[in-house]
Amino acid sequence: MTEPTRAPEPTPIDPAVEAALVASRAARAEALLELARIPSVSTEPEHAADMVTAAEWIAARLRGLGATEVEVIRTDLHPIVYGRIHEAPGAPTVLLYTHFDVQPADPLELWETAPFEPFLRDGRFVGRGVADDKGQIVMHLAALEAMRAAGKSPAVNITFVFEGEEEFGSESLFNWIPQNRHRLAADLALISDTGYFEGNVPAITIGLRGIMYAQIDVELSPVDLHSGQYGGSVENPANALARIITALKGPDGRVRIPGFYDDVVPLGDAERAQMAALPFDEEAFREETQVPALVGESGYTILESRTARPTLDVNGIWGGFQGDGAKTIIPAHAHAKVSTRLVASQDPQKVFEALREYVAQVAPPGVKVTTTFIHGGEASLTPIDHPATQAAARAIRAIEGVDPVFIREGGSIPVTAAFDHVLGLPVVLAGFPQPNSNAHAPNEWLDERNFEAGTRIMVRLWDELASVPSGS
Amino acid sequence: MTEPTRAPEPTPIDPAVEAALVASRAARAEALLELARIPSVSTEPEHAADMVTAAEWIAARLRGLGATEVEVIRTDLHPIVYGRIHEAPGAPTVLLYTHFDVQPADPLELWETAPFEPFLRDGRFVGRGVADDKGQIVMHLAALEAMRAAGKSPAVNITFVFEGEEEFGSESLFNWIPQNRHRLAADLALISDTGYFEGNVPAITIGLRGIMYAQIDVELSPVDLHSGQYGGSVENPANALARIITALKGPDGRVRIPGFYDDVVPLGDAERAQMAALPFDEEAFREETQVPALVGESGYTILESRTARPTLDVNGIWGGFQGDGAKTIIPAHAHAKVSTRLVASQDPQKVFEALREYVAQVAPPGVKVTTTFIHGGEASLTPIDHPATQAAARAIRAIEGVDPVFIREGGSIPVTAAFDHVLGLPVVLAGFPQPNSNAHAPNEWLDERNFEAGTRIMVRLWDELASVPSGS
Repeated sequence: MTEPTRAPEPTPIDPAVEAALVASRAARAEALLELARIPSVSTEPEHAADMVTAAEWIAARLRGLGATEVEVIRTDLHPIVYGRIHEAPGAPTVLLYTHFDVQPADPLELWETAPFEPFLRDGRFVGRGVADDKGQIVMHLAALEAMRAAGKSPAVNITFVFEGEEEFGSESLFNWIPQNRHRLAADLALISDTGYFEGNVPAITIGLRGIMYAQIDVELSPVDLHSGQYGGSVENPANALARIITALKGPDGRVRIPGFYDDVVPLGDAERAQMAALPFDEEAFREETQVPALVGESGYTILESRTARPTLDVNGIWGGFQGDGAKTIIPAHAHAKVSTRLVASQDPQKVFEALREYVAQVAPPGVKVTTTFIHGGEASLTPIDHPATQAAARAIRAIEGVDPVFIREGGSIPVTAAFDHVLGLPVVLAGFPQPNSNAHAPNEWLDERNFEAGTRIMVRLWDELASVPSGS
Repeated sequence: MTEPTRAPEPTPIDPAVEAALVASRAARAEALLELARIPSVSTEPEHAADMVTAAEWIAARLRGLGATEVEVIRTDLHPIVYGRIHEAPGAPTVLLYTHFDVQPADPLELWETAPFEPFLRDGRFVGRGVADDKGQIVMHLAALEAMRAAGKSPAVNITFVFEGEEEFGSESLFNWIPQNRHRLAADLALISDTGYFEGNVPAITIGLRGIMYAQIDVELSPVDLHSGQYGGSVENPANALARIITALKGPDGRVRIPGFYDDVVPLGDAERAQMAALPFDEEAFREETQVPALVGESGYTILESRTARPTLDVNGIWGGFQGDGAKTIIPAHAHAKVSTRLVASQDPQKVFEALREYVAQVAPPGVKVTTTFIHGGEASLTPIDHPATQAAARAIRAIEGVDPVFIREGGSIPVTAAFDHVLGLPVVLAGFPQPNSNAHAPNEWLDERNFEAGTRIMVRLWDELASVPSGS
C-alpha cells in the first residue's frame, strides 16, 4: 500500500515562508499554549464565558491575517467564528473547518499536570485540546501568518468556520449552515479534525462513522429503599438497567437492536483488501491502549470493526451508592449514556427510534424506563480518486516524503455530513496529530514534529488545491 | 393467625407498678425527649462527643436503678454502656440489648422540624431516634424505674448492653463480645430494635436475613478511550459489567450463582400458611414505597420474597461519564456494589466464594474483573415454640389483648448473629414502634400509645421470662 520512505522535496514550500516558519517557531508554540489555556469545554455550562474567550482569540488572529467579514457569531449556545480570505479570483474556494471546543478534563486525578496549564516539553505539547483540535487551529493560522510574513497570498479563496460545539453535537452550527449557504459557498470543504494513522503514518481520512447518542433512565421510587426491608420484593433499577444493556449487544460484538444493520452499506471485497494491506499492527494497538485483549465484531478484522463497522457502547453508567465501604440500599434510579457509531448510510434518528422501541420492549416490569435522544450525526465517505483528495495526498507527500494512506476513522465529525449532505461539498479530511494522542482522555498530547509538519503541509496544500477544477 | 381482639387482662402488671407508671407519664416522655435531643450520629465524626454524652446519660439512669458494674466502655470508636441488675439468684439471666446511636438526619430539608429538637404532640413523638432506638431504651429504663418505685426487683437477672455503632457496622461491639464472654454469660438475649407488623399489629420477630456485601470491579485500560476510535475493537467495561450483573439474577427473581440456594432452609408449609395469614396489604406496601409494581421471586409471595427468601441486589453502579450531555468515551473501568440477603443457614463467606467463582466464569474476555468481599453477617432464626419466644408472646398478649404475630424481617441486625453464633444464646427480638416509623428517613416518629404499651410489656416480660428453663 504505502510506498517506501523517500526524501521530501528539497524545497516543498516557498523558501521565504519556510524562513518565516523557522523564525516564528517559539511564537507558534506559545500561541498553541495560549489557546489551550482557555478551558473551552462546550458541554459544561460554567465554561460558557471561556467559549467566547476562545472564539475572540481566534477572531483576533483572523483579523491579524487580514481576513474579511470576521465575526464571532452568537448562537443559542456557543459562538461560531467566521471569516474569509478571498484574494484569488477565479481560483477554487475552500471551506476550512476546525473546532475550538474541547472535551471535559475529568477524571482530573489522572492528569499528570493541570489539564488547562498546557506545556511543551521534550518536543511534546501536553494539555486538554492540544491535539483535538486546537493544535490544528494554530497550524492553519500559523501557516497563513508565515505566508503573510513572506508577502504571499493563498492561491485559493479560503472561507473559515471555527465551531464551539463539536464535542456537544454541533447543534448551533447545524442550525446556522442552512441559513448561510451564500456565506459558505465553496468548491470543497477541508476539515482538520482527524490525524495520522497508527505509528505516525501520514493519512487522509476518507470515511468517518456517524453517531447516535442517547440516555436510558430507569426509575424505581422517589428515594433509595433499604435493601433488607425491600430486597426481593421490588425490581432493582440497576439490575434492570444491566439487563437492558445486556440485551443491546451480544458477546459477539453484534448490536441486537432489531433493524440496526438494515441500512448499512456493506464493505466491498476491494476495500476489505485495501484495509487488510494497511500497516496496522494489532498487537501494537493493543499495547498502546493497554487493554487485556482486543475484541472485535464477529466476522470482521479489528481494523474493520473499529472504523468501518457500526457498534454500540455504554459511555457512562451510574446509580446508587458509589463510595467506599457499604450502603445497604436499592437505588431509587439508575442511568446510562449509550451511543452507537454508525456507518454509511445509517440514519441516526431512525437508529434512535429503533433503540427506544427495543428498550421499551426488553425493559422489565416494576420500573419506569425512559430513553432520550441526546445527539446524532451521519457517517460520511469521500472517494480516494477525488481531485481534492489527490491534492491533499500530493501536499503530504511533498512534506513527509511518503504517500499518505487512505483510511477510515471510527470517530464522528458531525459537520462532515452537513458539508456533504447540506452544502453538497466534497470533503477532504486532513489532520496531523498521532492517533494515540489521548484526544478524549487525560494527558492529551501533540508532538511538535507533527505540529511543524502539519503547518508546512497546509502551506503547500493551498497551492495544490488551486488546481482542483471548480465544481469537481 | 391472629386471634380476635380481646380485652387485656384486668391487672396485667402489678398495680403498684401501674400506679408508678401513671404517675411518671410526663417524666417518662420528657426522658425520651431529653435523650433524643443528643445528636448521637455514629457515622459522623463531628458527633463523637455526643456519643459519649448519650452513653453517660444512659449510665446515669442505670446507676439510678441500682445497677452494678455500670461502665461506659471506651472502644476504638464509640462507647458501649454495660451494667447489670442481678438480684434473682437461681433465675435465668437475660442479656438485654439496644443501641443509642442514630441514623444521620439528612436530607434535612425534608424534616418538618429540626431532627434533634424532638417533641410530643397529639400523642406522637417526632425526632431522630425516637423510634430507632431511643424510645426502646427509655421504655426499658422506665419500666425498671417504675418497678423500683413500687419496691419490686425484676424476677430475672438482667445484663445490659447498649451500643453506639449499630448504624455503623457494630465493629467495636464485635471486637468486644468475644473478649467479654464472662461478663455476657446469660441464658438468652433480648434485643429491642425491631417493631410491630404493618398496621400496628404486635409482633415478635423470629427471623432476620443475613448479608454478603461485595464489590465487582471491571477494568479495561488505564484511561478512558475515545468511543469512535476504539468502539467495536475493545470490550466495554460497562457493557461487560452489565452482562455480569445480568448473569447473577434472572428476571424471575432467582439468583443464578451456582450453589446459592444449596444451604437454604426451605420454608415449611406451616410457616408459609402462617405468613399468608398475616395482615399484609401488598397494595398499601406498594403505595408506601411508590414503586410502579412489586416484583418478587417466582413461586413466592411478596412477603416471603422480602423477608424469608434470599435475594441479590446491586446497591450502586458507576463508570464513565455521568454528567449532563454527552461524552464520547469508553469508560476505563466500571464498578458495582452487589449484595445478597441471606437466610438460615447460608454462610456469607461461602456465598461470596460462589459469587467470585461465578463472576470469573461469566466475565467476558478483554477486561480484567475482580470481586472483593466487603462484609458479611449470618441470618438468624429463633423457633416460635422456644420458651423465651413464648414468654414474650404471653407478655404482649397480656398488655395488648391480642396474640402477637410471628414475623421475619428482611433486614439484618448484625449483633443478633453475634449473640446467636458467638455467645450461643437464643435471641428474642421484641420491639414496639410501628413499622412505618421513618426509622432511617426524615420525620421519624413513635406513638405514645406504643411507648406506653411497650413499657408495660417489658414489666410483664421480666416476670414471664423467669419461667424459662436455664440453658433452654
